[in-house]
Amino acid sequence: MEISGITEALLKAKEEKGLSFSDLGGLVGRSEVWTAALVYGQAQATADEAAKIVSKLGLKRDRDEIVPFLTAFPNKGLGPVVPTDPLIYRIYEIMQVYGYPLKAVIHEKFGDGIMSAVDFTMEVEREADPKGDRVKVTMSGKYLPYKIW
Amino acid sequence: MEISGITEALLKAKEEKGLSFSDLGGLVGRSEVWTAALVYGQAQATADEAAKIVSKLGLKRDRDEIVPFLTAFPNKGLGPVVPTDPLIYRIYEIMQVYGYPLKAVIHEKFGDGIMSAVDFTMEVEREADPKGDRVKVTMSGKYLPYKIW
Amino acid sequence: MEISGITEALLKAKEEKGLSFSDLGGLVGRSEVWTAALVYGQAQATADEAAKIVSKLGLKRDRDEIVPFLTAFPNKGLGPVVPTDPLIYRIYEIMQVYGYPLKAVIHEKFGDGIMSAVDFTMEVEREADPKGDRVKVTMSGKYLPYKIW
Amino acid sequence: MEISGITEALLKAKEEKGLSFSDLGGLVGRSEVWTAALVYGQAQATADEAAKIVSKLGLKRDRDEIVPFLTAFPNKGLGPVVPTDPLIYRIYEIMQVYGYPLKAVIHEKFGDGIMSAVDFTMEVEREADPKGDRVKVTMSGKYLPYKIW
Amino acid sequence: MEISGITEALLKAKEEKGLSFSDLGGLVGRSEVWTAALVYGQAQATADEAAKIVSKLGLKRDRDEIVPFLTAFPNKGLGPVVPTDPLIYRIYEIMQVYGYPLKAVIHEKFGDGIMSAVDFTMEVEREADPKGDRVKVTMSGKYLPYKIW
Amino acid sequence: MEISGITEALLKAKEEKGLSFSDLGGLVGRSEVWTAALVYGQAQATADEAAKIVSKLGLKRDRDEIVPFLTAFPNKGLGPVVPTDPLIYRIYEIMQVYGYPLKAVIHEKFGDGIMSAVDFTMEVEREADPKGDRVKVTMSGKYLPYKIW
Amino acid sequence: MEISGITEALLKAKEEKGLSFSDLGGLVGRSEVWTAALVYGQAQATADEAAKIVSKLGLKRDRDEIVPFLTAFPNKGLGPVVPTDPLIYRIYEIMQVYGYPLKAVIHEKFGDGIMSAVDFTMEVEREADPKGDRVKVTMSGKYLPYKIW
Amino acid sequence: MEISGITEALLKAKEEKGLSFSDLGGLVGRSEVWTAALVYGQAQATADEAAKIVSKLGLKRDRDEIVPFLTAFPNKGLGPVVPTDPLIYRIYEIMQVYGYPLKAVIHEKFGDGIMSAVDFTMEVEREADPKGDRVKVTMSGKYLPYKIW
Amino acid sequence: MEISGITEALLKAKEEKGLSFSDLGGLVGRSEVWTAALVYGQAQATADEAAKIVSKLGLKRDRDEIVPFLTAFPNKGLGPVVPTDPLIYRIYEIMQVYGYPLKAVIHEKFGDGIMSAVDFTMEVEREADPKGDRVKVTMSGKYLPYKIW
Amino acid sequence: MEISGITEALLKAKEEKGLSFSDLGGLVGRSEVWTAALVYGQAQATADEAAKIVSKLGLKRDRDEIVPFLTAFPNKGLGPVVPTDPLIYRIYEIMQVYGYPLKAVIHEKFGDGIMSAVDFTMEVEREADPKGDRVKVTMSGKYLPYKIW
Repeated sequence: MEISGITEALLKAKEEKGLSFSDLGGLVGRSEVWTAALVYGQAQATADEAAKIVSKLGLKRDRDEIVPFLTAFPNKGLGPVVPTDPLIYRIYEIMQVYGYPLKAVIHEKFGDGIMSAVDFTMEVEREADPKGDRVKVTMSGKYLPYKIW
Repeated sequence: MEISGITEALLKAKEEKGLSFSDLGGLVGRSEVWTAALVYGQAQATADEAAKIVSKLGLKRDRDEIVPFLTAFPNKGLGPVVPTDPLIYRIYEIMQVYGYPLKAVIHEKFGDGIMSAVDFTMEVEREADPKGDRVKVTMSGKYLPYKIW
Repeated sequence: MEISGITEALLKAKEEKGLSFSDLGGLVGRSEVWTAALVYGQAQATADEAAKIVSKLGLKRDRDEIVPFLTAFPNKGLGPVVPTDPLIYRIYEIMQVYGYPLKAVIHEKFGDGIMSAVDFTMEVEREADPKGDRVKVTMSGKYLPYKIW
Repeated sequence: MEISGITEALLKAKEEKGLSFSDLGGLVGRSEVWTAALVYGQAQATADEAAKIVSKLGLKRDRDEIVPFLTAFPNKGLGPVVPTDPLIYRIYEIMQVYGYPLKAVIHEKFGDGIMSAVDFTMEVEREADPKGDRVKVTMSGKYLPYKIW
Repeated sequence: MEISGITEALLKAKEEKGLSFSDLGGLVGRSEVWTAALVYGQAQATADEAAKIVSKLGLKRDRDEIVPFLTAFPNKGLGPVVPTDPLIYRIYEIMQVYGYPLKAVIHEKFGDGIMSAVDFTMEVEREADPKGDRVKVTMSGKYLPYKIW
Repeated sequence: MEISGITEALLKAKEEKGLSFSDLGGLVGRSEVWTAALVYGQAQATADEAAKIVSKLGLKRDRDEIVPFLTAFPNKGLGPVVPTDPLIYRIYEIMQVYGYPLKAVIHEKFGDGIMSAVDFTMEVEREADPKGDRVKVTMSGKYLPYKIW
Repeated sequence: MEISGITEALLKAKEEKGLSFSDLGGLVGRSEVWTAALVYGQAQATADEAAKIVSKLGLKRDRDEIVPFLTAFPNKGLGPVVPTDPLIYRIYEIMQVYGYPLKAVIHEKFGDGIMSAVDFTMEVEREADPKGDRVKVTMSGKYLPYKIW
Repeated sequence: MEISGITEALLKAKEEKGLSFSDLGGLVGRSEVWTAALVYGQAQATADEAAKIVSKLGLKRDRDEIVPFLTAFPNKGLGPVVPTDPLIYRIYEIMQVYGYPLKAVIHEKFGDGIMSAVDFTMEVEREADPKGDRVKVTMSGKYLPYKIW
Repeated sequence: MEISGITEALLKAKEEKGLSFSDLGGLVGRSEVWTAALVYGQAQATADEAAKIVSKLGLKRDRDEIVPFLTAFPNKGLGPVVPTDPLIYRIYEIMQVYGYPLKAVIHEKFGDGIMSAVDFTMEVEREADPKGDRVKVTMSGKYLPYKIW
Repeated sequence: MEISGITEALLKAKEEKGLSFSDLGGLVGRSEVWTAALVYGQAQATADEAAKIVSKLGLKRDRDEIVPFLTAFPNKGLGPVVPTDPLIYRIYEIMQVYGYPLKAVIHEKFGDGIMSAVDFTMEVEREADPKGDRVKVTMSGKYLPYKIW
């Protein structure tokens, strides 16, 4: 697994402190998914944000190692080509099964272009449902039309 | 490309008739993404639904070939291991960059389990934005806890 | 091999104590396959269950490392894309040879959907047979129909 | 997709005649999974069995093409390295998540050896369940101990 | 090779007419690289632009096949994972050798974000050089900062 | 990640000293991309150039380890087959989408040959643009015609 | 290389003691290939056999590490997908070139089934030959017919 | 499947004539495995040998297509990287499990070199065994020592 | 196999006419390897050279198809990632075994740079040797030093 | 990188002593490419040759580690499937572009067989050339005809 030892230390401290990603995100005015991405080394905090998180998690002793991790330009992407974890695989499966349908609907509504994965946000909510609660994931990415030149 | 010739014929007729996926879906009481999935051979219609779509698209002459395609149990998944189309790749990239953060947030909110990609719906909307409109994708999948036995 | 050092320590202690997976599972009211999955970092125990197992295996000195391993949300999946171990490969081979037949029979009996691998149990039994005993594996997964929306 | 055109013709005729795999298997005294495997070119029938199936499906006109397909030594295995179809993928996922636990339990019960995938049978049943019916798959393979020489 | 037969027909007609990509691009007010991308099925023309190109190339007889090809939403990407053609491989090699240096310089100058490959242009020029002429490729992509939310 | 620990130390010192690649390159009369390539172990400095860089970065204590790294013949190439980092992936995507068009334009202008990635330079500039600044990358590689013998 | 450090220690001791695999195998009444497989962690000895080998190799000091290695259920398979070592590759090449011919001959002689690689032995002999000695490899695997059910 | 249509025609004729590979090989003084290799396009016959085989199989009408196939320099190797057919996979598994042991034994007996897969023969025999007959495969390849220069 | 039908027709005509690559190369003043590369679609002839070859091979009837094949800019590279043909594989093996040694020797003699595979020639000769004749392959590629900028 | 630490130590000592591969090879009467192969763990020296090299490089203190490395049977092959280093990649590219032409020429001159990569030598020379010096690589491998049996 290519998950950083620093990520593991952050997750363990978060667990022990009984903090949620939402609690941590609230410290720095960010959403929970972005905060989780920061913990996994997929996003970049300012030095000030990093210091607040380190302090809250009681990890000041290791700040010289953790702050640079949180403020560096991340080398993004973690898993193998096809993920084996069942939860993450389901995103891959959605891409395999609904990738072309999604592409067709986006092209129909917007033209030749893409949904940005960089100018992008993602939210996760619990939807109560009598037949079993549901996970609701909302993604919003800027539409980028293909430039014609 | 492994897109079926029947899919191509359906898309061409849809284009010529000036119909949207929403128009086609409305015929059979379905959403536009599900309807696009049907056209790409990733979902299964009833014989009655298939007949309505074939008729609307003016493809009755080829109904013997198209109706079985639309009503068969699909062999799902279309593209190569890592997709090369930029729009579809962005879903793959979201999985690479946000896969672990998403997993961590879902586990925090729900426990050890997954978001189903089978008991699952997906919607696409245009979000007006003065800095450039955005593509909003909403996914809703049943939470399935890991069974303990 | 990506098997955790903690897994190896648990297996070694189990060997030395002469305990079976069934013995360990009995401590916490679980089946032997689930208990083996826990040991391999593929399932999640409660803190109480983890403590019982650690105690039974005589590993209390290492509980600070082992209990979090047993109670964490697992990153699941272990092996390479195509497994090389002959016993595990046979499951892959069953999927290659009998995957489509199984799919066809399940669709015939249930419609368009899947057998869940999450709401899922697996049992292993020895079948006495005069021509040589047999391994009987029984899998039971919830049928999930594809949602139509 | 590497599914043979003959398989497709057999499936279409079966669909049109309203026959189940169990009906076809009953003609030749075989189980439904084996019969499905035969249709997918993964098993080998005798000339007599092949003739009965061809006749029942009303495909006598094409018997010169179909009978050799059903009676040949099959080149087994159909799909890509990692299957994309969600139903078939779940078998792959079971191997990824439960492969080592299964290996550990089998070794504990039997010693160093494997469950044969050749001297092997598989059954599929529907298990009624108030929370949603379940798919029960029972596999039985001869235990083969590693030879020591 | 996955190059479309329509692309081959367009290239052959261009060759026979002695037209350059610049000549074709000039017809519709586009650059030569974009025009080449259109011919390879990687860009999307309007119906009017497609008609002009078909006419100039003397391919009116096949317009029913070619115009839809030129005006469709392209499924982009053509080659295998690692290209074998030496010219195209050199772009891959530049990514392997200079990918991280380029990333580091862009992050230094712009912050955490990417150069868009969608809002993107590319030009090719000949640089006269006494030691042997050089190929100059100029790429310009919009800088997209990672959204923080 | 296969980035050398020495690269990480160089990047950290550069960060702490507040130096840009351009500052470092200026010390030895080199461009910023080449200097970044040197830091990532993709280019080769002279002993004198290496000493200047080590001194400027305040890393003299580690010169016995760093100087050989900077002056060795590099084993080039760093990432996996398909890069997961979004910025580096965009170069891969440009190759997938514009590889054949680029090849066609270069062949039209130069004949059968390639743009060298060895006798090669690359520059990165910021292009001010009211709709959002752009990244301009200029590559210049010697044209090498295929030898005919 | 995924060869265990314990394997390396065993090979080194064997080298220093001037013992052949045949000498070691003779201690425990086994063939030389099986003994080599044991040393490479591909077979399983009894505790008594392991003790004899450890003693003969003068490795008693490390018996607590070596004996469990030799008596564990092995996770089998060592190399990458396509081996690069020329000697081992030749077995792969024999499979590529003679795989189908071998299959055809075995089916002709035995019917639909396989040669077991588990109930299996292998011997290596030197064949004197005036044009250069030859390596003779004899494999014997139980014929397993496909079960029909 | 990449098996040639000519191979299929040869196998079908052989089946209909009730001839074994040994019968065909006897016509031209060759072993059955070599003859099977010839039929699968992995070996090269003389024009005279090809004519005898074509005649015996009653395929004279297609000799213009078959004789060049049998006498051409073969492009060898047929299957995918990891074979899915269970019989052929067992050879791959033998390489995975016994590759290093075999290498170690050959080096011990011969020194640094390989067993040739070109100056190579293979025989298949049935070994009667009360516990179930066995497949005996004998391979003989010239030992080639690594040249030192 | 991805070898063009035109290549196969050229090879068949060459065979029937009893011409060697050297004979064909002599017609247009080229070496035999280059001429073979042309036949395999890996090199580019002038229209005049193509006409001479077509004429010599007695293929004038198909010149409209063959001449464009011989004069087009080739899309180079033919085989799969790791070739299965034993002769071609040996080149791959030489790269695996001697790649780093060759790199080290070239860097020692020339500095940081490469041997061009574009400004490149290759010759094949028979070396008589009493222990068995040898294949001598001579490659000559321009040394290209890495540009420093 | 899978290059051994021992290789790195040998290369560093060679660099510091200012010795060439030719100097080292001269000590033991070997060519420079073979000597480089030995340093990279791809060839096997005698104990005496190893001692001379260790002594010349001033590495006697580490002889217990280095001599066994140089005298062991090597596990050959170093790089990934497709090499990323540009110099080594060019050998791969030569195989992709000239593999079939080379095969065709060798078959024309020798018949069905291969050039051995084991009974094989390789030399590297500098060819002075006014347009830029060239790298000349000469390979000589024994011709091995396919055995017919």
